[in-house]
Amino acid sequence: MNARLKQQMEFIIEIDKLKTILRQTNVIGETRQENDAEHSWHLAMMCMVFYEYANENAVNMLRVLKMLLIHDIVEIDAGDTFAYDDKGHEDKREREELAAKRLFHLLPLDQAQEFIQLWKEYENRDTPESRFALALDRLQPMLLNYHNQGAVWQKHHVTGERVYNRNKIMAEGSETLWEYAEKLIRDALDKGYLLT
Amino acid sequence: MNARLKQQMEFIIEIDKLKTILRQTNVIGETRQENDAEHSWHLAMMCMVFYEYANENAVNMLRVLKMLLIHDIVEIDAGDTFAYDDKGHEDKREREELAAKRLFHLLPLDQAQEFIQLWKEYENRDTPESRFALALDRLQPMLLNYHNQGAVWQKHHVTGERVYNRNKIMAEGSETLWEYAEKLIRDALDKGYLLT
Ligand SMILES: [Ca+2]
Repeated sequence: MNARLKQQMEFIIEIDKLKTILRQTNVIGETRQENDAEHSWHLAMMCMVFYEYANENAVNMLRVLKMLLIHDIVEIDAGDTFAYDDKGHEDKREREELAAKRLFHLLPLDQAQEFIQLWKEYENRDTPESRFALALDRLQPMLLNYHNQGAVWQKHHVTGERVYNRNKIMAEGSETLWEYAEKLIRDALDKGYLLT
Repeated sequence: MNARLKQQMEFIIEIDKLKTILRQTNVIGETRQENDAEHSWHLAMMCMVFYEYANENAVNMLRVLKMLLIHDIVEIDAGDTFAYDDKGHEDKREREELAAKRLFHLLPLDQAQEFIQLWKEYENRDTPESRFALALDRLQPMLLNYHNQGAVWQKHHVTGERVYNRNKIMAEGSETLWEYAEKLIRDALDKGYLLT
């Protein structure tokens, strides 16, 4: 077999592990935690469906999809850091950079470089594509938690204010979706899904 | 909230159920079955990585990704039909068409039509994009089963000949990937992962 295809296959087998990285969100109606692979698929679907709500007109959908599909792969080595875990965020960047190096360099160099660049673009949020991708990534767990009557929020004693402050950055990628999320937070407070 | 966004949100919540549709393949190194959402993510990654092996040069990657992301959504209503279950395949098409109608029509009409067309294109395999997408969809469970030492093949008494005959259609989408799969089948026979 050619060496290039062999490297690509190794990567595809290695990233199967993303299906075992659990997030702090439950699948709707289930008591089990969502994993990163399912989450990434859901975000890609949200990109297809909510594309018209990206703030900027020139957003390249293919680029957003690629970014969303790979954005959590580093968590195979670095693990998932819960959104409201301040301590875990201190060395997150460092852990994830090492992970990106190891994982993406299983691929041939040209693809490794492309994927690392996509991942960095996502992390740096300095393009319309990455800002829109981030808005989707922030909205998705809110939707799941809301539709599970806030069970995970309550477990971690998360307040409405905390959710609001962490996620208002969504507006940079999609004002429409942030407006929707704001209403969802207010409604979750009214219903007691979120602490005041 | 505007009616359009409301419909789109309902669809995004409804398709969360894809995470509960189990396939007849285990995640590598795990005893649990893979679900359709994880599977769809894995296929999308394979599309990004193996794109250069599509038989035809003009394959549109965005179209392949969209097809792969939505191709199993009908199974939310219709269920997964195991590849080697001949009985289940008799009324598969009918069950899936009803499912497509209900699920995609949760969306606004323009998006419902786009998604149904993508799904039909995938099913009909009459474009380079759909033939490449199918090749990936056939390769992925072979990779997982091989890396699980053929546990699921043995459970269902699947022979090498059966896997060969079912999957040789891969060559219509990617000769290179089918050549790889052929070697994998031979190796699985040698190792006793597949019955002779
Ligand atoms: Ca993450």
